[in-house]
Amino acid sequence: HGHLRQIRCSADGKPLTCMKDDEDVYFPFSLIKKRFDVSGHDIDENNFEWTTSYARVKIPEFKTYTYASEFGHFASYSVETRDRVRCINPATGIPMSTQWDSTPYYYPIQIAQFGLQHYSRMLAANESTLRLVELGKEHRDWQGSASTVHESSVRTYFKDDETGVEYVNVSAGAQLTNAGVYVYLKNEPDLHVVHFRWRPAENASFTFLVKVLETGSLILLNYVQVEDTRCVWADKVAAGKDQISFTYALGDSSNEWTNVTRDLLVDAARAMTTLGAGKKTDNVIYHPGDLKYVSVGFRGEATLLQRIYQKPQAHRELFLTAADWAVQIQDSKGGWSIPVERSIAERKLVLPPGWYSAMAQGHMLSLLTRAWTVTKNEIYLQSAVKGMELFQKLANDGGVRNDFLENMHWYEEYPTTPGSFVLNGFLYSLIGLYDLSNVETSKEFNKTVDEGINVANQLFINGTRSLLTLLPLFDTGSGSLYDLRHVGLGSAPNLARWDYHAVHVYLIEWLHIITGEQLLADTAQRWAAYARGNRAKHN
Amino acid sequence: HGHLRQIRCSADGKPLTCMKDDEDVYFPFSLIKKRFDVSGHDIDENNFEWTTSYARVKIPEFKTYTYASEFGHFASYSVETRDRVRCINPATGIPMSTQWDSTPYYYPIQIAQFGLQHYSRMLAANESTLRLVELGKEHRDWQGSASTVHESSVRTYFKDDETGVEYVNVSAGAQLTNAGVYVYLKNEPDLHVVHFRWRPAENASFTFLVKVLETGSLILLNYVQVEDTRCVWADKVAAGKDQISFTYALGDSSNEWTNVTRDLLVDAARAMTTLGAGKKTDNVIYHPGDLKYVSVGFRGEATLLQRIYQKPQAHRELFLTAADWAVQIQDSKGGWSIPVERSIAERKLVLPPGWYSAMAQGHMLSLLTRAWTVTKNEIYLQSAVKGMELFQKLANDGGVRNDFLENMHWYEEYPTTPGSFVLNGFLYSLIGLYDLSNVETSKEFNKTVDEGINVANQLFINGTRSLLTLLPLFDTGSGSLYDLRHVGLGSAPNLARWDYHAVHVYLIEWLHIITGEQLLADTAQRWAAYARGNRAKHN
Ligand SMILES: [Ca+2]
Ligand SMILES: [Ca+2]
Repeated sequence: HGHLRQIRCSADGKPLTCMKDDEDVYFPFSLIKKRFDVSGHDIDENNFEWTTSYARVKIPEFKTYTYASEFGHFASYSVETRDRVRCINPATGIPMSTQWDSTPYYYPIQIAQFGLQHYSRMLAANESTLRLVELGKEHRDWQGSASTVHESSVRTYFKDDETGVEYVNVSAGAQLTNAGVYVYLKNEPDLHVVHFRWRPAENASFTFLVKVLETGSLILLNYVQVEDTRCVWADKVAAGKDQISFTYALGDSSNEWTNVTRDLLVDAARAMTTLGAGKKTDNVIYHPGDLKYVSVGFRGEATLLQRIYQKPQAHRELFLTAADWAVQIQDSKGGWSIPVERSIAERKLVLPPGWYSAMAQGHMLSLLTRAWTVTKNEIYLQSAVKGMELFQKLANDGGVRNDFLENMHWYEEYPTTPGSFVLNGFLYSLIGLYDLSNVETSKEFNKTVDEGINVANQLFINGTRSLLTLLPLFDTGSGSLYDLRHVGLGSAPNLARWDYHAVHVYLIEWLHIITGEQLLADTAQRWAAYARGNRAKHN
Repeated sequence: HGHLRQIRCSADGKPLTCMKDDEDVYFPFSLIKKRFDVSGHDIDENNFEWTTSYARVKIPEFKTYTYASEFGHFASYSVETRDRVRCINPATGIPMSTQWDSTPYYYPIQIAQFGLQHYSRMLAANESTLRLVELGKEHRDWQGSASTVHESSVRTYFKDDETGVEYVNVSAGAQLTNAGVYVYLKNEPDLHVVHFRWRPAENASFTFLVKVLETGSLILLNYVQVEDTRCVWADKVAAGKDQISFTYALGDSSNEWTNVTRDLLVDAARAMTTLGAGKKTDNVIYHPGDLKYVSVGFRGEATLLQRIYQKPQAHRELFLTAADWAVQIQDSKGGWSIPVERSIAERKLVLPPGWYSAMAQGHMLSLLTRAWTVTKNEIYLQSAVKGMELFQKLANDGGVRNDFLENMHWYEEYPTTPGSFVLNGFLYSLIGLYDLSNVETSKEFNKTVDEGINVANQLFINGTRSLLTLLPLFDTGSGSLYDLRHVGLGSAPNLARWDYHAVHVYLIEWLHIITGEQLLADTAQRWAAYARGNRAKHN
């Protein structure tokens, strides 16, 4: 390469500076990156790497799939640490989202993913080696509020003679400034999940105290029986120097025996995140070892089982909490409606609050089928079968189906009119239908369930036919489209960014594993190659 | 820009050398060009221009369009100079193609384009200023074969007393080595079209003699009454030093009064092209000024009108020759069949010889409607109406229509099964249907014609509906697709190369002018911007 020098260049009329030597002309990567949606970074001073896709394209590691399998790669999901998850609501055990509305709300897709994540992690984890620590076994483990001179706390221990179960009654001042009755936590980094069972009076509350090891700050997490749309917020009263106090709204759970299972890392991080301005970079995530677990305390009047457990996980419980919530919340149409408005395509397509999503319905089918697998409780299958009804109704009739060119059934993540035909949501909905269809029919089931399984199969077959026919329409020759909204809107196509493209590849190969259809394997392979800079040929 | 140096780079794993300064990393244009199908060239030593599309994107210059208008920009077409055009067959006046078969054949699409080209040029030219030169007016203009001692030539002049028309009988040796009776041509570069009217005996032939000014070579073009599939070929006998002799097969036209109209530039260039190896670069094109026009000579026995005309063009005549050929050759199904096999998609889709094309049918509609406009001879409209029948039959039933997703009517340039849904051919077929539908119905027409105009209108409406619905499927976000074959084949999409992309933009805007549909204007504008490097956004 001789005679290297700057020259004047233009790219479609736009002037810029290039380099030239005897062999070639060289264009700045900043231009290429902007034009062609590729990425690149310095490895060191003398090495630069261009990688077309910033997202890593993975394909499923499994070779077979059933309704009882891990749900794809969801064992690596972490709904709880997403910046748009405000909290795991302590009244329900369910995550709340602020993605499309600043007031946290229940978002069924996210809740199903939360359940499927914990189901998948449950399978991935070796439950038999689960470390479980019992606290509060001795009366002296239940500490009084030693630092407070104005308040006294009373602990009364008793035992059910028939069952042998040991209880403790606590009675302490109800104000948050009162330390109440408390039990020290084991400070082992992996034991971040705390579980207890209690029956609080109306004035009862509880508090976790943890310490951020890097800064030395103390975090007080107060769970108080109030209703508040915020779910979690920083208390206005300064708790003291290097000490931050938050309240979680516990709702009214008075006079009921209630299980409480909280992840200290999650609850502390979600609380701390509310201090930020809502930017992605403000999101706080704590890992084992980031926090010292100090204590759990109780105020007001409450009865507790005289055991508090600390453990590294509660996957089965959180999975079933999500499934139970789904059964309980399902409406008369079989839907899990989404309570916030959703608009796409610069508000050309708007779904008012209360809309349904085939992706939510499909995810719920996957979740509920697994809840049945684990519990054999048919109520979950009944809910799943009911959840299919909306697949059979058109979007403009309140359902979740649109027919592409009045012909090809498509289960709509966003059932807009005209249709949007989002690919990833459709693929997830097919997997949900497959999961339910994959359950073996049986005369021992309720008739509705038995027949519903066949309905799921037919819906899956119809959807698969559409997939095999329409998938090529998502292929741009150098990437994939996120949806087919442009057909109804007559607009430019909506290219999928690389992380969605990676999701497409994963899901298409997943459906290849399910169906054995070669078209899907070929497409997944070709699309994976697009992410490495390959492109289709021109005529 | 300080500290400019070479560094090591990689592009999706492929190593290469880049340049780096303090501001950016620079990648070689050869890589960009290959990856992203863009073009670039040096303007001078210190200037380099990147132009995404090598093809110039034009939009129609007209603002209104009717069936009598110029056919798009076809006035700038030049079918005769295409490398795959073997000849303008002297027996028919019609071009013959070697595009998909080395034996020249009549290709109806090309013939219609030839006719429409000459119609458009006829409108574009100012006919009133047409320069026309009469030759052979004086007896002495008809030369004997002075250089031949063994042969004599006889010329007899007579006049039809009733009409006053003057004739000449020529009688000369029939061998090509004989110069026969000849008339010197005017050597004015623009007067490259020669016209005469004759009645040859079986042994008669004629010859043009021209000289290539750059090389000094003489070209002999002999038009001989033989049948030969080659149409034109170099004579094996050496005609002499710096002299090349060709034969054009005239077929049997003996004892018939026949008009002969030949373009010397075209005939010489087509003949010379046969000397090459068939590569595009072997194509010979002559422009006015490249050749000296020497003489036209006659051998054997023939009667001629005693006037030979030299002129710069014969657009009206060539246009009507094409239209008359269309009427004459149309088969019982109303089709202009294509006599060679056509395969696309690596022979996954094959049309055996004798197939029909909606593009051919549509072009013929445009041609025939114009022939009616010019002549008011209803025979052309009858042929056009008959030509619509194949639009109403499905491809797998021998017609030219496929229904995309069993729903959207598409007039197929290549009526394959599964459908290929080529865009440009469909657009041309719509224009053909529009042209016929645009003729005002009248009770003075034959009833079939009157009703046929309404059928054309309905076919146009159905096709336009498909266009408005399906056009977005051709949009890749950075270019356009040539067709939708990938839907039926489950393959990668077939990207349109830039010259076809430019055709798309032109035709879509043309249909916008016809229909007033805003979608078409928007699409043409967006696609034109793709050719300047613009790209659709990702989600
Ligand atoms: Ca989605
Ligand atoms: Ca074509």
